[in-house]
Amino acid sequence: MTALIPVTKMQLLETGIDGLDQIAEGGLPAGRSTVIAGTAGSGKTVLALQFLVDGIRRYGESGVFCTFEEDPADLVANVSSFGWNLNQMIEDNKIAVVDATQHVSDNVIEVGHFDLSALLARIENAVRRVGAKRVILDAIGALFPQFSDANMVRRELRRVQSGLRLLGVTTVVTMERTDEEGGVGRFGVEEFVADNVIVLRNRLEVEKRRRTIEILKFRGASHQKGEYPFTIDLRNGITIIPLSAIELVQKSSEVR
Amino acid sequence: MTALIPVTKMQLLETGIDGLDQIAEGGLPAGRSTVIAGTAGSGKTVLALQFLVDGIRRYGESGVFCTFEEDPADLVANVSSFGWNLNQMIEDNKIAVVDATQHVSDNVIEVGHFDLSALLARIENAVRRVGAKRVILDAIGALFPQFSDANMVRRELRRVQSGLRLLGVTTVVTMERTDEEGGVGRFGVEEFVADNVIVLRNRLEVEKRRRTIEILKFRGASHQKGEYPFTIDLRNGITIIPLSAIELVQKSSEVR
Amino acid sequence: MTALIPVTKMQLLETGIDGLDQIAEGGLPAGRSTVIAGTAGSGKTVLALQFLVDGIRRYGESGVFCTFEEDPADLVANVSSFGWNLNQMIEDNKIAVVDATQHVSDNVIEVGHFDLSALLARIENAVRRVGAKRVILDAIGALFPQFSDANMVRRELRRVQSGLRLLGVTTVVTMERTDEEGGVGRFGVEEFVADNVIVLRNRLEVEKRRRTIEILKFRGASHQKGEYPFTIDLRNGITIIPLSAIELVQKSSEVR
Amino acid sequence: MTALIPVTKMQLLETGIDGLDQIAEGGLPAGRSTVIAGTAGSGKTVLALQFLVDGIRRYGESGVFCTFEEDPADLVANVSSFGWNLNQMIEDNKIAVVDATQHVSDNVIEVGHFDLSALLARIENAVRRVGAKRVILDAIGALFPQFSDANMVRRELRRVQSGLRLLGVTTVVTMERTDEEGGVGRFGVEEFVADNVIVLRNRLEVEKRRRTIEILKFRGASHQKGEYPFTIDLRNGITIIPLSAIELVQKSSEVR
Amino acid sequence: MTALIPVTKMQLLETGIDGLDQIAEGGLPAGRSTVIAGTAGSGKTVLALQFLVDGIRRYGESGVFCTFEEDPADLVANVSSFGWNLNQMIEDNKIAVVDATQHVSDNVIEVGHFDLSALLARIENAVRRVGAKRVILDAIGALFPQFSDANMVRRELRRVQSGLRLLGVTTVVTMERTDEEGGVGRFGVEEFVADNVIVLRNRLEVEKRRRTIEILKFRGASHQKGEYPFTIDLRNGITIIPLSAIELVQKSSEVR
Amino acid sequence: MTALIPVTKMQLLETGIDGLDQIAEGGLPAGRSTVIAGTAGSGKTVLALQFLVDGIRRYGESGVFCTFEEDPADLVANVSSFGWNLNQMIEDNKIAVVDATQHVSDNVIEVGHFDLSALLARIENAVRRVGAKRVILDAIGALFPQFSDANMVRRELRRVQSGLRLLGVTTVVTMERTDEEGGVGRFGVEEFVADNVIVLRNRLEVEKRRRTIEILKFRGASHQKGEYPFTIDLRNGITIIPLSAIELVQKSSEVR
Ligand SMILES: Nc1ncnc2c1ncn2[C@@H]1O[C@H](COP(=O)(O)OP(=O)(O)OP(=O)(O)O)[C@@H](O)[C@H]1O
Ligand SMILES: Nc1ncnc2c1ncn2[C@@H]1O[C@H](COP(=O)(O)OP(=O)(O)OP(=O)(O)O)[C@@H](O)[C@H]1O
Ligand SMILES: Nc1ncnc2c1ncn2[C@@H]1O[C@H](COP(=O)(O)OP(=O)(O)OP(=O)(O)O)[C@@H](O)[C@H]1O
Ligand SMILES: Nc1ncnc2c1ncn2[C@@H]1O[C@H](COP(=O)(O)OP(=O)(O)OP(=O)(O)O)[C@@H](O)[C@H]1O
Ligand SMILES: Nc1ncnc2c1ncn2[C@@H]1O[C@H](COP(=O)(O)OP(=O)(O)OP(=O)(O)O)[C@@H](O)[C@H]1O
Ligand SMILES: Nc1ncnc2c1ncn2[C@@H]1O[C@H](COP(=O)(O)OP(=O)(O)OP(=O)(O)O)[C@@H](O)[C@H]1O
Ligand SMILES: [Mg+2]
Ligand SMILES: [Mg+2]
Ligand SMILES: [Mg+2]
Ligand SMILES: [Mg+2]
Ligand SMILES: [Mg+2]
Ligand SMILES: [Mg+2]
Repeated sequence: MTALIPVTKMQLLETGIDGLDQIAEGGLPAGRSTVIAGTAGSGKTVLALQFLVDGIRRYGESGVFCTFEEDPADLVANVSSFGWNLNQMIEDNKIAVVDATQHVSDNVIEVGHFDLSALLARIENAVRRVGAKRVILDAIGALFPQFSDANMVRRELRRVQSGLRLLGVTTVVTMERTDEEGGVGRFGVEEFVADNVIVLRNRLEVEKRRRTIEILKFRGASHQKGEYPFTIDLRNGITIIPLSAIELVQKSSEVR
Repeated sequence: MTALIPVTKMQLLETGIDGLDQIAEGGLPAGRSTVIAGTAGSGKTVLALQFLVDGIRRYGESGVFCTFEEDPADLVANVSSFGWNLNQMIEDNKIAVVDATQHVSDNVIEVGHFDLSALLARIENAVRRVGAKRVILDAIGALFPQFSDANMVRRELRRVQSGLRLLGVTTVVTMERTDEEGGVGRFGVEEFVADNVIVLRNRLEVEKRRRTIEILKFRGASHQKGEYPFTIDLRNGITIIPLSAIELVQKSSEVR
Repeated sequence: MTALIPVTKMQLLETGIDGLDQIAEGGLPAGRSTVIAGTAGSGKTVLALQFLVDGIRRYGESGVFCTFEEDPADLVANVSSFGWNLNQMIEDNKIAVVDATQHVSDNVIEVGHFDLSALLARIENAVRRVGAKRVILDAIGALFPQFSDANMVRRELRRVQSGLRLLGVTTVVTMERTDEEGGVGRFGVEEFVADNVIVLRNRLEVEKRRRTIEILKFRGASHQKGEYPFTIDLRNGITIIPLSAIELVQKSSEVR
Repeated sequence: MTALIPVTKMQLLETGIDGLDQIAEGGLPAGRSTVIAGTAGSGKTVLALQFLVDGIRRYGESGVFCTFEEDPADLVANVSSFGWNLNQMIEDNKIAVVDATQHVSDNVIEVGHFDLSALLARIENAVRRVGAKRVILDAIGALFPQFSDANMVRRELRRVQSGLRLLGVTTVVTMERTDEEGGVGRFGVEEFVADNVIVLRNRLEVEKRRRTIEILKFRGASHQKGEYPFTIDLRNGITIIPLSAIELVQKSSEVR
Repeated sequence: MTALIPVTKMQLLETGIDGLDQIAEGGLPAGRSTVIAGTAGSGKTVLALQFLVDGIRRYGESGVFCTFEEDPADLVANVSSFGWNLNQMIEDNKIAVVDATQHVSDNVIEVGHFDLSALLARIENAVRRVGAKRVILDAIGALFPQFSDANMVRRELRRVQSGLRLLGVTTVVTMERTDEEGGVGRFGVEEFVADNVIVLRNRLEVEKRRRTIEILKFRGASHQKGEYPFTIDLRNGITIIPLSAIELVQKSSEVR
Repeated sequence: MTALIPVTKMQLLETGIDGLDQIAEGGLPAGRSTVIAGTAGSGKTVLALQFLVDGIRRYGESGVFCTFEEDPADLVANVSSFGWNLNQMIEDNKIAVVDATQHVSDNVIEVGHFDLSALLARIENAVRRVGAKRVILDAIGALFPQFSDANMVRRELRRVQSGLRLLGVTTVVTMERTDEEGGVGRFGVEEFVADNVIVLRNRLEVEKRRRTIEILKFRGASHQKGEYPFTIDLRNGITIIPLSAIELVQKSSEVR
């Protein structure tokens, strides 16, 4: 117990998504998981995929995407309008897909016994095959309703998180929220288990919508506080708007 | 798993409802389901039927309407005041009706065992018979209260959605909401399962009502953000009012 | 199912309550049920009885009143101050009464097995005897607490509604609400089952009360939107105040 | 059922509490029960006892007080500071007391089987002995927590109400509320069963308290609407302050 | 039952805490219990102990303190900073301590069977030994969570209250609240059972705290209404600040 | 029971965190536990570790850290960016670590039987080994979800607190909160059991975050009231900003 603890210095992984790397003061905590929480349509899936795509395009880092809610074919089709050719990347062994959606034919009885170890094994396999540095788990919420108890959600989340840690990859996990305000997750424990939490909001203000992104916490790393507006458009996918360029230049000069 | 994923490029289906096609920047995602959620009397049924009727009138596209709450005869009578002669359309094999209301004579005991496969089969039949391209499922909420659990609702919705996807039709599914604000659906999971969500609101503002429509999310497609006012009147049914004509002209020039 | 659907064109029944016929743009949907929801003392019973009384006085249309909460003798006494002589109308075979209150002597054990068919039979009998065109079911909420489940409430309400539809009468059903804002009914499903919903409010504004009436929805018919103030007084019972006479003249000229 | 209904014209009983008779436009509905609901310390017990005491002092009408929460000796002591000598009135056979508090020695097991008929019999006895015209049931809430179900509360309340109606007395029933706003009773059904409801409020406004009384509903009788301030003081007990004397003079000239 | 009720005229016991006696218009109801409710750290324990200490110092009246949450040794240590030497008072037989905390070694199984009679016997013993006129029960909430049901809380509280009444002592009972607004107690029934209720608040107003005390109800006694600010400091313990000296002089001249 | 109670005069332990010692008017209550509650990312862990680190650096006082949620290696890595070399301190026998996280390999079945005595024994061991004066228990919430009942949480917390008291150490216990406002803990009882409570807030004000610290209660000690802003930065860790220097100089001159 007093034995010396082996420590790996905390590092950041540049995402390649400019605005994000700015407010994250360098990038996401490397080798760890970051939870992205948001309401339906807030942009979680687009952000997660952009993290993979930019990894490949800008740094040549392969990635794995594991999907719990949307069909892989749909995901590919949905982002093709951004000019992202996921299929090509799959063919080039840059991306591997893990389909963790529950198929319509799956029997109801089996639901209660989701096999987390099997899932982690499939992810590990995919990581190995393409030599992935980045992993995304999209819509992990589809996994949890089957547990009735906050305590169980806590433990399962912790298992997912440590399982991924062992693989040495940097992971983005997207998670559902039903309200823009209040606690981050559905069970009131998710944000405490997670090492890093980013919140996407799609605020309704007098009949207009306003999208914002906030880094709520990074355990062990500094980051910009508060919400930053962002847009989703055909040309660039997600663009985070630094509120004041000068402000950010100053700040980023202190970063790492 | 690394096998190439067969992707169909995401397309839009013009609804023929002008304002809607404008804010949807072309139409509803083709071959997919769009959920329309709203409080009682918010106009869900009228909008859904107008989608069918305009499909027939403007594009000669047949349709199927499946009703869970209102009697088919009532639906026909209710919209006749808009000058929509559904009976004629049924006679012309332009519309097929699937009556999924629970009949008063149905036994209480059977409620728990609603047969979703049978329903999908009946819809498929109807689709085949009239060669339908458009399908509406009105008031699907009447189907769910029999399940106590959010997880089950999630799975059943997913089954309905994939079942319809296989038929290649573009579907509108209406869904109940009890409050104008907050989460979209009754069980807090509906909006995450659905690929596309439109919200109809009937806001009470100092004793006056104001109807608005909002595209909350379109997976894989751009759309106008925020709420747009609309009216229901005898002459045109639902008319969505583009807030600023100039604004919209500019925007629609970029569309598709 | 593709067989032609027999449709009866939607008609309106003039209630004889002036303001109401104005905001209803002609009257209540004929041959259907209209739910009137409101908090305690909001005027539901007075409005329902006035619908019966004006039917007799102005159009010679007989009526049936079925009461779930108040003793028939009390109802008669309570409205006598308005100059309404219900007893005379009963004697003249203009009104028939169905007493559906649970008598104090009724055994607790039997509560769970309320016999809806028997009730509908009694109502049908009463309708036949006086040749009623109008029926009221006052305080139907007293019927429902015995069911624990929203789904059951939904089904029972639908049974009541279709049962009454078969009789060809125009029905007013009053229903309890505990809050002035939010969902209409106690179980969150009533407003979706009902074809037509009117809400009575008794708003507390800085220690003053303000009564308003709103037609929330009429399936298949146009109506004035928003809340209209009304009063209850000895001379006229309920009087609904059209906010602007000119406005209404214009609007009503377009009606039917 | 079509048999003529025997009707007793609705009458009012002057309470002798001036302000109250003014806002009640004559007094409480005679021969019926009026519920007085309010938070702890809002003045329910004082108002109820003043109704009894003024009945004796001003009209020579005897009364019965039935207490569910406070010990009779405490009640007597508590109001002695107002100069009300309940003991003397008991001795003069002007007041009879029914002690319905659950004694500390009562066994827990018996709680579930409160004998309502026995209670009504004891009240009837007391009414007979002193020839009471007025009855109060103070803190009836202490009776209900033993029922888990809103439906049962509804039925028991109705039984109490009809039982008292048969005795021909005018009754005041006090009832607990935990919040100043929202539904009247604890179970959300009390205000619908009750024929007449008065609400006492003890509003906290920026660290000051303000007491108000409101007649929420009188079935079958007109009354002043909204809240009226009142005070409790040693000399007069409860004094209701008519907001504008002129206003009230006008209004009261129309009363009965 | 018509037998004359033996009544003890309601008296007040000067607490010796100046501000409190002023807003209480003389003191706490003698021979009865007063509940003091407040959030964590609102000053309940300090106020209760000051009631004991001032009783001894100013009137030579002995007291008993019964503690449910804090260890007696802690209580003594905690208030020593106010210059209160509880140990000396215990030695002088001015204070007796009843330790009703559940010891860590107590078995979980026994929790459900807390022996209230045994507790009352221990309190009675202590009262006898020092001839106490004042008793405090601090943090009685620690006693109740073991009951799941509001009805049981109601009965147990009533038993405590009557048990203490028989001893002829004036009691202060402190009770937990989790929110500054809304109902007084945790179970929604405590404030109705209690004869007298004082609320301590520790309001958060734009990042500042403000302590206030309010007498919510005194059954059978007049008192100042609304909230009065107070402070806790080393020299005087709790000091209640009469908002306007003049106002209070006038008012207190009318008191007793 | 009347036996003299052995009392230890309440003392304060300087934390070495300047701002904190100022608002705490000297330091944390020595030999006791202080709960630090806050939402995810509010700074609980950083504050707790700074308490340990400053103890060692400024006063040469050893410490124990017991972690329930984060892996010890992660904790060490996370704070290394502050220039805190925990590993060195562990090597120097200045810090001992107790790993109380539930390992992924732990069996689900065992969860319900967490062995608190074993944990306390491990902590005692660690305290002995390094001669610790300071102990931190980080994220104790991970321990409680396994209990369904507030009463059990209350008892377990009390056991932890008394267990630590016996060790003579000054302890900081961090605890989760899901909302910035309202009750302190998840179960509504934590703040009552705890002797001392500090709340960290991370308020969202119009898209900006503002961190504040508040001492909610110190049983038996004076402290500054209300919220004080603080920052977390690389150079100093947590810095609490005294709102007005003059104000604080005055106040601190009165302290101890
Ligand atoms: N090295 C650092 N430099 C600057 N800020 C940091 C640093 N490390 C952490 N922070 C800030 O502190 C926050 C985390 O603080 P901490 O881990 O103490 O929170 P916590 O209250 O313990 O949260 P949780 O409940 O999730 O454990 C981060 O989100 C970040 O904003
Ligand atoms: N090609 C596109 N061009 C522009 N905007 C798009 C495009 N694709 C998606 N969007 C926008 O992004 C939104 C969907 O984002 P995304 O699917 O990432 O949301 P999400 O948070 O994952 O939602 P869910 O929880 O429902 O999965 C759409 O509603 C749309 O507004
Ligand atoms: N012929 C008409 N002319 C004008 N307005 C109409 C007409 N028919 C319906 N409406 C309006 O549309 C509303 C009903 O719309 P619709 O039936 O589509 O609502 P909905 O959202 O389906 O409600 P529900 O959940 O109760 O089924 C009516 O309340 C009315 O205000
Ligand atoms: N004769 C009358 N003159 C004037 N106002 C009256 C008269 N009778 C009733 N009222 C008013 O109408 C209100 C009662 O209306 P009504 O009984 O219709 O309410 P309700 O909505 O049916 O209430 P509940 O749910 O309790 O049955 C009374 O509270 C009173 O304010
Ligand atoms: N003699 C008196 N002089 C002045 N005010 C008094 C007197 N007696 C009582 N009060 C006031 O009346 C309040 C109590 O009123 P009352 O006992 O009628 O309340 P309640 O609504 O019955 O409360 P509960 O629900 O607790 O029984 C006291 O809190 C006090 O403010
Ligand atoms: N010696 C003291 N000097 C100044 N203030 C003190 C002193 N002792 C306590 N306080 C103040 O009083 C508060 C504690 O009061 P007290 O213990 O009476 O609260 P309580 O309402 O009993 O809380 P709990 O429900 O947690 O027992 C402390 O938080 C502190 O602010
Ligand atoms: Mg998504
Ligand atoms: Mg509809
Ligand atoms: Mg009624
Ligand atoms: Mg009372
Ligand atoms: Mg205390
Ligand atoms: Mg932490």
